[in-house]
This record gives sequence, C-alpha cells and structure tokens, in this order.
Amino acid sequence: MPHDPGHEKRLAESSVVLPPALPPFGQYVPSVLHDSRLWVGGHFGTRPDGSIHVGRCGQDVSVSVAREAARSAAINLLATVREALGSLDRVVQVAQVYGVVNATPDFTEHTLVIDAASDVLVEVFGEAGRHARLAVGVSSLPANLVLEIQATLVVAP
Amino acid sequence: MPHDPGHEKRLAESSVVLPPALPPFGQYVPSVLHDSRLWVGGHFGTRPDGSIHVGRCGQDVSVSVAREAARSAAINLLATVREALGSLDRVVQVAQVYGVVNATPDFTEHTLVIDAASDVLVEVFGEAGRHARLAVGVSSLPANLVLEIQATLVVAP
Amino acid sequence: MPHDPGHEKRLAESSVVLPPALPPFGQYVPSVLHDSRLWVGGHFGTRPDGSIHVGRCGQDVSVSVAREAARSAAINLLATVREALGSLDRVVQVAQVYGVVNATPDFTEHTLVIDAASDVLVEVFGEAGRHARLAVGVSSLPANLVLEIQATLVVAP
Repeated sequence: MPHDPGHEKRLAESSVVLPPALPPFGQYVPSVLHDSRLWVGGHFGTRPDGSIHVGRCGQDVSVSVAREAARSAAINLLATVREALGSLDRVVQVAQVYGVVNATPDFTEHTLVIDAASDVLVEVFGEAGRHARLAVGVSSLPANLVLEIQATLVVAP
Repeated sequence: MPHDPGHEKRLAESSVVLPPALPPFGQYVPSVLHDSRLWVGGHFGTRPDGSIHVGRCGQDVSVSVAREAARSAAINLLATVREALGSLDRVVQVAQVYGVVNATPDFTEHTLVIDAASDVLVEVFGEAGRHARLAVGVSSLPANLVLEIQATLVVAP
Repeated sequence: MPHDPGHEKRLAESSVVLPPALPPFGQYVPSVLHDSRLWVGGHFGTRPDGSIHVGRCGQDVSVSVAREAARSAAINLLATVREALGSLDRVVQVAQVYGVVNATPDFTEHTLVIDAASDVLVEVFGEAGRHARLAVGVSSLPANLVLEIQATLVVAP
C-alpha cells in the first residue's frame, strides 16, 4: 500500500463499532478476495441485542427502523471486509453497492432507506467510500429480512 | 487506446442524442472508474420534457411505454459513461447489464422491455455493446420508477 | 494455467451432466469474457424433457421443485461457462452469485432454494466454487421463470 488512507483511523473516531463478522445463512462465503477485488455477499441488519431486522417496509417496518437496519447491514458488511482484509486500510475504493428492500408495492422511500447504508461507507472510507449504487424493492427476502446490502470493492492486493 | 473503436462516430450517426448526465437521487455517485473498470449505478428513464418515467408494468404502464423508459434509461446511462470517460471511444466492452422492472406479479414481458435498453448499447458500441444480462421484475422501485438499468463496463485506462 | 485445478475431473466423477448451452431469451449474450473475468448473465432451470421451470414459490411451485430448478439453472450456467472457456479447468474462482426467486410476499425459504445452485458450484469447483452470494425474492420474472442465477467468475486468461 503506497500510503495510509486513514480508514481505520476514521473508523476509530466515528460512532461506528464493528461487531464480529456474521456467518452466512447458506452454502456460500461472506466474501471472496482475488487480486485487487473483494466481492461481498448480501448482508442484513441486526439490533444491538443481536436479533435480526425482519419485516416489510410499508407494512410493519417504518422508514426510520429500516434506516437502522440499513446502517447496521453496512456495519456488518464492514466487519466482513475487515475480516477478509485484516485492515480496512486496504480498501482502495467501494465500487458498487446494491441495496434490496423488502417492501410493499406502494413503498417509494428506498433511496432514503439505503442512504443510511451509504452514509456509513462514506463516514468510514471518505471519498473512497463514494460508490455507484442500485436500490430496489422486492416482495420477499430470505427469513423475511428487512433488507440486504451487497458490495464490490477495489482493494490493495 | 490502440485504435478507434468508432463508438462516438456510430453515436453521431445514430438516432441517439445524449442528454446531460443526471445527478443521482441519493448518497452515491453515478459511476465509479478504477483502472479498466467502470461501474455504473442504477439509471432511470426520462421523457423528452425531462419528467421521469414512473408507474408499474401490468398496471398503469404499457410494454410500449416501458420500452421507451428502457431506451431512455440506457441513453441516460450512456451520458454518465461519457461524462466519466470523456469519450465513449474508451469503452472496450459492456460486460454486464442488470435491468429491474417495476411490475405486477402477472407481468411476463421483462425481456421485451429490457431489450430496448440493450438495443441502444449495441447500436452505439457494436459488438463491444453485446453484454451478459439479468432482467427481473420487482414489486416497487424508488419514487415509483418504471425501471432501472445498471451496468459494468471494461474501459481503456 | 499453472496447474490442473481438477474441475473437469470432478465434473466427470459427479452426478452433473452438462447439457448444450442455452441461447439467451433476448438481445444479449450468455456471457462476456475479458482478461481474467467471465460475466455470466441470468440462467434459468430446465426439466429433463427440456421444458422450462416456470411458476412462483409459495404459490404453485414447492421448495423441492424450486431446488430442482436452482440445481438445473446452475448446471445450465456451467454449460455456458464451459462453452465460453473451452474447459471448466480455466475457472480460478467463482466470485459472486446472484439468485433471484419468483416468490409470493410470504415466502421465506430463498436460502434453501438457492443453496441447491451453490451446491453444484462447490461440487464441481471445490474450494474455487465457494462464492459470495445474494439471494432475493421478486414478484415476477421474464416468462414466469421460477428463478434466475447470475455469476461473476475469475478465470485464467
């Protein structure tokens, strides 16, 4: 790495506390690292007591609670990134983020919800955290999760 | 770049007119460029008057209008690509396109809709515009968008 | 390629029989190969008689049948990979898999369904088949497909 990007320092000075990385639900791995790329699978949000954020936006989950789920999902994703890389300082750029929200057909606030995840990435990585994004609503998610966040990162080999 | 791939020339000779690149809805950037890769976030379709294509296929949006939205979304995506690269001639290959259609459960014509976006890419990039693709229907999109198109491109550094 | 990863050998010794690669539904190509990356588009499942798995989980498709569709979709995807690469032995790592399940809002077993696709990849590629994954439910898919599987692979150039 040519220089210190300051990600770990920003994290330590932020309100973000990384939990242990979560094991995946099914027959896959939390992330795959190859050369300068880290592919991170879908991550969900958890509450401070460790329970999983479940429910549907527009039905039994408010935008405010969905934003908490999105922030937590991004933090859980960061825990996976650090476990894969050893240090967040190896992150060169968050390239792409995909946010999927469990929502009723009349729900329209997906952007506001997924912004809470994007905010975490910029809070920790600064300019290197600004990513291309797609946010959509879906009619169902595994185990009735409120949302999932997936990301592709460029990393220092 | 070893040679002129002719993308800008094909664009100039086509019926496609690139509008100004659209700003993103939320806390993200329209695209991320790193080395030989350009990740482009979700793009939606706009009408000639600048209004956004909203509504749901199978409900209040016909396949014909959804195809207009898809064509426009691809053109808006191209505007972002040109802004990021300076020139479309830096595009080596459109690798992957993901098309997400706001649709009722009984809608089945996603392929026909997203083909209108794919057609634009082949029209402008020729063989370099032939991409791998996934097209799905979802129950809701941000701001009730008709559809979103996302892409990953290989580019000349 | 520095050494034989044994993927073709594992395939020959497994219960997996690769069918001919399927042509795409619409205006796109089954996969795009560039340098060390293979982007594979959405693949669906087929029955032994060649018919396509259609229907919706939670409505007219059981988890058991959806798992057959997922397994078949992964096998169809492998057929595309082999056609693109000449040999599966060129696969260095399956990086990312995206599984999309046509499902009712109350369906929650997406993980179990998409695991049947992931299992095929590990069966054939061993450790190189362990991927990051996102699995979601959607309200509709092209032609009422039960599911689609998409993947990004690292390959030997």
